[in-house]
Amino acid sequence: MSSRSTPPDADLVRSLGLPATGSVYDLSTGWWRHMPTFAGNPQLEVVTYNSPQGQRAEGRFPFDSPGTNDVGFGYVSELVSGSLHTGTHIDALCHVTCGSEDEWHGGTSATSALGDYGALRGDASELAPIIGRGVLLDVPKLLGLDVLPPHFAVGEDHLRQAADAGGVTITASDIVLVRTGQMKFWPDTARIAEESGGSGVGVDGAQWLVSKGVRYVGADTMSFEVRPSPVPGNPLPVHVLLLQQHGIHIMEWVNCEDLAADGVVTFLFVALPLTLRGGTGSPLRPIAVV
Amino acid sequence: MSSRSTPPDADLVRSLGLPATGSVYDLSTGWWRHMPTFAGNPQLEVVTYNSPQGQRAEGRFPFDSPGTNDVGFGYVSELVSGSLHTGTHIDALCHVTCGSEDEWHGGTSATSALGDYGALRGDASELAPIIGRGVLLDVPKLLGLDVLPPHFAVGEDHLRQAADAGGVTITASDIVLVRTGQMKFWPDTARIAEESGGSGVGVDGAQWLVSKGVRYVGADTMSFEVRPSPVPGNPLPVHVLLLQQHGIHIMEWVNCEDLAADGVVTFLFVALPLTLRGGTGSPLRPIAVV
Amino acid sequence: MSSRSTPPDADLVRSLGLPATGSVYDLSTGWWRHMPTFAGNPQLEVVTYNSPQGQRAEGRFPFDSPGTNDVGFGYVSELVSGSLHTGTHIDALCHVTCGSEDEWHGGTSATSALGDYGALRGDASELAPIIGRGVLLDVPKLLGLDVLPPHFAVGEDHLRQAADAGGVTITASDIVLVRTGQMKFWPDTARIAEESGGSGVGVDGAQWLVSKGVRYVGADTMSFEVRPSPVPGNPLPVHVLLLQQHGIHIMEWVNCEDLAADGVVTFLFVALPLTLRGGTGSPLRPIAVV
Amino acid sequence: MSSRSTPPDADLVRSLGLPATGSVYDLSTGWWRHMPTFAGNPQLEVVTYNSPQGQRAEGRFPFDSPGTNDVGFGYVSELVSGSLHTGTHIDALCHVTCGSEDEWHGGTSATSALGDYGALRGDASELAPIIGRGVLLDVPKLLGLDVLPPHFAVGEDHLRQAADAGGVTITASDIVLVRTGQMKFWPDTARIAEESGGSGVGVDGAQWLVSKGVRYVGADTMSFEVRPSPVPGNPLPVHVLLLQQHGIHIMEWVNCEDLAADGVVTFLFVALPLTLRGGTGSPLRPIAVV
Repeated sequence: MSSRSTPPDADLVRSLGLPATGSVYDLSTGWWRHMPTFAGNPQLEVVTYNSPQGQRAEGRFPFDSPGTNDVGFGYVSELVSGSLHTGTHIDALCHVTCGSEDEWHGGTSATSALGDYGALRGDASELAPIIGRGVLLDVPKLLGLDVLPPHFAVGEDHLRQAADAGGVTITASDIVLVRTGQMKFWPDTARIAEESGGSGVGVDGAQWLVSKGVRYVGADTMSFEVRPSPVPGNPLPVHVLLLQQHGIHIMEWVNCEDLAADGVVTFLFVALPLTLRGGTGSPLRPIAVV
Repeated sequence: MSSRSTPPDADLVRSLGLPATGSVYDLSTGWWRHMPTFAGNPQLEVVTYNSPQGQRAEGRFPFDSPGTNDVGFGYVSELVSGSLHTGTHIDALCHVTCGSEDEWHGGTSATSALGDYGALRGDASELAPIIGRGVLLDVPKLLGLDVLPPHFAVGEDHLRQAADAGGVTITASDIVLVRTGQMKFWPDTARIAEESGGSGVGVDGAQWLVSKGVRYVGADTMSFEVRPSPVPGNPLPVHVLLLQQHGIHIMEWVNCEDLAADGVVTFLFVALPLTLRGGTGSPLRPIAVV
Repeated sequence: MSSRSTPPDADLVRSLGLPATGSVYDLSTGWWRHMPTFAGNPQLEVVTYNSPQGQRAEGRFPFDSPGTNDVGFGYVSELVSGSLHTGTHIDALCHVTCGSEDEWHGGTSATSALGDYGALRGDASELAPIIGRGVLLDVPKLLGLDVLPPHFAVGEDHLRQAADAGGVTITASDIVLVRTGQMKFWPDTARIAEESGGSGVGVDGAQWLVSKGVRYVGADTMSFEVRPSPVPGNPLPVHVLLLQQHGIHIMEWVNCEDLAADGVVTFLFVALPLTLRGGTGSPLRPIAVV
Repeated sequence: MSSRSTPPDADLVRSLGLPATGSVYDLSTGWWRHMPTFAGNPQLEVVTYNSPQGQRAEGRFPFDSPGTNDVGFGYVSELVSGSLHTGTHIDALCHVTCGSEDEWHGGTSATSALGDYGALRGDASELAPIIGRGVLLDVPKLLGLDVLPPHFAVGEDHLRQAADAGGVTITASDIVLVRTGQMKFWPDTARIAEESGGSGVGVDGAQWLVSKGVRYVGADTMSFEVRPSPVPGNPLPVHVLLLQQHGIHIMEWVNCEDLAADGVVTFLFVALPLTLRGGTGSPLRPIAVV
C-alpha cells in the first residue's frame, strides 16, 4: 500500500476508549500579542495585514475592479511573528545541544546541521501526532499545597507517590504531566515568580521518568525543570538528560489547573505539533478528554 | 464545579470509538520556509534566532558566566513569521467580511472590531478543538478521474453521489472533506494550476453542505470554492455563504491523498486550532485515525 | 532638461559655506537591537540572516557548487524589523491625524489614504534631503542648568532668549534644534524619565517656531513637546500645531550634547531621510559640520 | 575637550565648496514594499502598525480615556522589515568573508565575531558619514552607448579613459561612482537582466580603484562587479579585493542617470549610513550637489 499512514497501534485504540463522557479540557495557555515568554526568545507579534479598509484605500483585491465586487466582499488576515516556544509548546530534538561539538540528540552537530533557517534534522518536521493515555502527577495535591514553593525540586519520591496516590502505574506509552500549580497565577508571571518561581522536576525525578520509558513529558512551567540548576557546571541538566540524551520530548506551560480542580488523573491526551521544517519546537494546544 | 471543560458529548465519545486499527493519517501539507501560499499573504519565514555559535560569540546565556556551563549546554530557537493561513489551515469567523459595514459572521463590523493587531471578536481564540467523524467525499473517484480538471465546480449532485458511493449519510456533527485531487501535485503549484487550478465547491454544493447542518468543512485546495467565481459581483460566494452567513468554518489545503489511496471514507477526525487572539485562522495539522 | 534635480538654491550654497574646519558632529542616537523606543511601536530587531556557517550547513550559495568557491567566499546579511520612528528620526506628514475624519496635514483623510501597507500620500517618500543652517537653542544653558527638570515647558521666551544669547536670528530656511539636555543620560531612559522626563517645547514655544517660518525643527527628546499635555482634550497639541496644521517636520531624539559641550550655536546641518513609500517617518543620522 | 566630533578636515571643507548652484540630485532608488532585491535577502515589508481606526477599535492611546482626546488626535506608524542591503546601500566590512576561518576585513573571523544578532565588529555602527568630492565615471558614454551590454566587464582602461574624458584626476578622498546605465530600466529588473545584466567592474578595474587609494566606490548595479565571475573558484573576486582585502566600502544600486543626463562629472557627494549595531550595511540616500 502506498499510504503513508502509521502502522496499526493497539495502544492508541485503547487510549481512544478511555473517555466516558466526551468532556474536553483545553490544556493550553492560549496565545496573544506580547504574551509572557522566555526572555531569550522574540515576543509574539500579531499585526493586521489585510483589511477591507486597507483593500479599499489601496484599490487592492477584492476592491480592484469595478463591477466584480458588488457585495462588498473583503477579507482579513494577519502577519504573525515569534518563537515556536511561545505559550504551551513542545521541544523538538534539535532544541538542546551539548558538548564541544554542540550536538543534539543522536549525535547531530549544530555545525553541520544548523543553518540560518533552522535545523536540518531533529526538527519540528519530525514531530509525530501525540495520542495516548495522559497521566497527571499532581505534586502540590500530594503535599497538601495549592502550589509548590519557589525552587522546589520535584524528586522521584514525589512523582512515585503522586502516581500511587492517583492509583496509576506509568507505562511507556503514557504522556506524563507534572503539576506544580504555577498556572493558578497565569499569566501573571511576576506572581508566578514570587509564589512558585523555579519549581520543577529535579534530576532524580527526571531519571525516574526515563526509567519508565515514556516518550513525552510535560509540566505547567516555563522550563519543566527545577531552577536554578542543582548541578554545578550544567545549567539545565534535566533538559540534557531527557531531550539531549534520551530523546524524550518536553512540553512546557501545559495548563493542568482544570484537570487538578476536577481530580482527573488519567485521560485521553491529544496534541498535534505543527511540522515546520527547521523549527525547534511547536506551539501546542493539547487536550484531555475524559 | 469551577472547571472550564466542555459538557459531556456522546457524539464525541462515539467518534473516538470509530478507529479499529489505530493507524493515523496526517492530513496536513507540512510547513517550510517560503512554501507556496496565497499571494495576498506574507511568506512563511523561519530564521535561526538562538544558536550555540551565536551564544558563544556574543557571550550570552548559557555561555555568559565561566564555570556555570562546563558541559557546553546550548539551545536553539527561531523567529518565525507569516500568515496563519499558510499550508493546511482553518478560517476563523472574522476572516471574511461583506457589505458596506464590512461585517463578518454575526453582524460584527470591522470598523468596530478590527484593530491594528487583529480582530477583537470572531477570532482564532474562539476556535474549538475539532473532534468528530470525518467523511471524505472523493469527487474525482466518483467521476473516474485522478484529479478534477481546472475550474471544475463541485455541485450538490457530485457531493450527494460521492456520499452515496461511500455508503455514508452526512449528519450535523460530521466534518466533511471534499477532494479534488490537487494535492497529488503538491507542492508544485504551477502544476496544480495547470492540471486542476480553480476546481472547487460550487454554490449549490455549498448550499447542500449548509442543508446538512455541518459546522466544519474542508477541501484539498487553497480556496475551497470553484474559481473564478460563477456569481457576478461576488468574488467568493461560497466563503460568503458558508463562513460569513452560516458561520461554518472552512479548512483549506487539507491533504486527502492518502485517505483516497486507501479508500477510506469515514474516520476519526481531530484538529486542534491554536487559539491566537486576534488571529483570523489557524494553521492546522488535522489527522484521520482509522 | 529631463533631470529631476532640485532647482538652484542660493541658501543651500550659503549654508555649505558655513563650516570653517570640517569637523563633523554625529547628532544621532545610533541604533541597536532592542534599544529604547516609544512603547507604542515595535522593538528594533536584528537577526543574522545569512552566514558562512549557515551557507555551508545548508549547501546554499556560495557553497552550493563544488569547484566554484575555492577561496571560501561567504557573505553575511541580516533581517531587521522595527518602526521608522526608532532612535533619531523625522516625522512624515502622515504621522499625525486629527478630527473625525482622521486627517493629516493638507486635509488627507486616513480613511482614503491609509492602507494596510502604510500611507499613500504625505508619506516618507515625499521627504526631501535636509541641508541648511542648523541653529541650536540651548535652553538649559540659558537657565544655568545641566538639564531641564521633568515636565519643564520650553516657552517662546526661552527660545527667543536662547537665540539672543547665541547671537543668532532665526530665518525660515534654518533647521532649529531645541536642547533639553536629556541625552546626557541616553540610553538610560529610566534616568531620563527621572531627571528630565516630559520636558519639551510648549505650545507658545511652538507658535513662535511657526512664526519664524521654519520647515524643520528638532529636539533631544522622544516627543519633542512637553508632556503631559497642558491642553485639555488634546494629548499632543504641539504635534497637531506643527505637523498636522503647518506641515513642519519634527525630528526627535536628536543628540545635541556634543554641540552644547563645545558651545556650537550655528552649523551646517545635513540629514537624508530614507524615502520609503508608505513610511510615516524615517530614521535619521543628522550631522552638524562646523 | 570632551566632544566626539571628528578632527578638522580641509578636504571636507573644500568639497563643500564645490557646488555653484545648490541643485541637488537624489542618487537613491527609493524604497517600497516588495521592491526588487537580491534573492538571498528577505523582501522589504511595510505594514501599518498604528492607525486611528485601530486605536479607536481597540480603545488604545490616544483613544483610551474619555475627555482626554476631544480633538480626535491619532497617530500612524508602521512595522518595517527587510535587509539593510535593500535598494541603494553601502556594504559594511563584515558583509564579506573569505577563507577557512570565514574572515572579513582585518582578519576578524565570523566564528568569534558573528552572533545571532549580527556582527560584533566591522559592522554598520562603524560606518562614517561620507562627504567628499564625487566623481562619475560614465562608461557607456565613453563607449557611445546608452547602457553597457550584459556581462560587460569594466576594466582599468575604461575607468581611466572615462576619468580622462571627464577631465578629472582621481584622488584618495574622492568617492568614485561607476555607471553602467542599468538604472535606465529601474525598477524593471527583468529588463535590466536582459539589456545589461551582469555588467560591472572587472578585476583590473577594481585594482585600478585600489591603486587610487579611494575609500568609497559605488555603481548603479546590484553587485558592483561583473557577473558571472571571470575568476575560477572565486564567485565575487571584486568584493574580495575591495571590501575583504582593502576595506574599501562598496555602494550598490546608486542611481547615476540624472547626473549622466546632465553631464555632471564632479560634485559634492553626501551619504549618511545608519549606524545599526550588528548590521552588515546600511540603506543609503546619497545625494550629489552641484
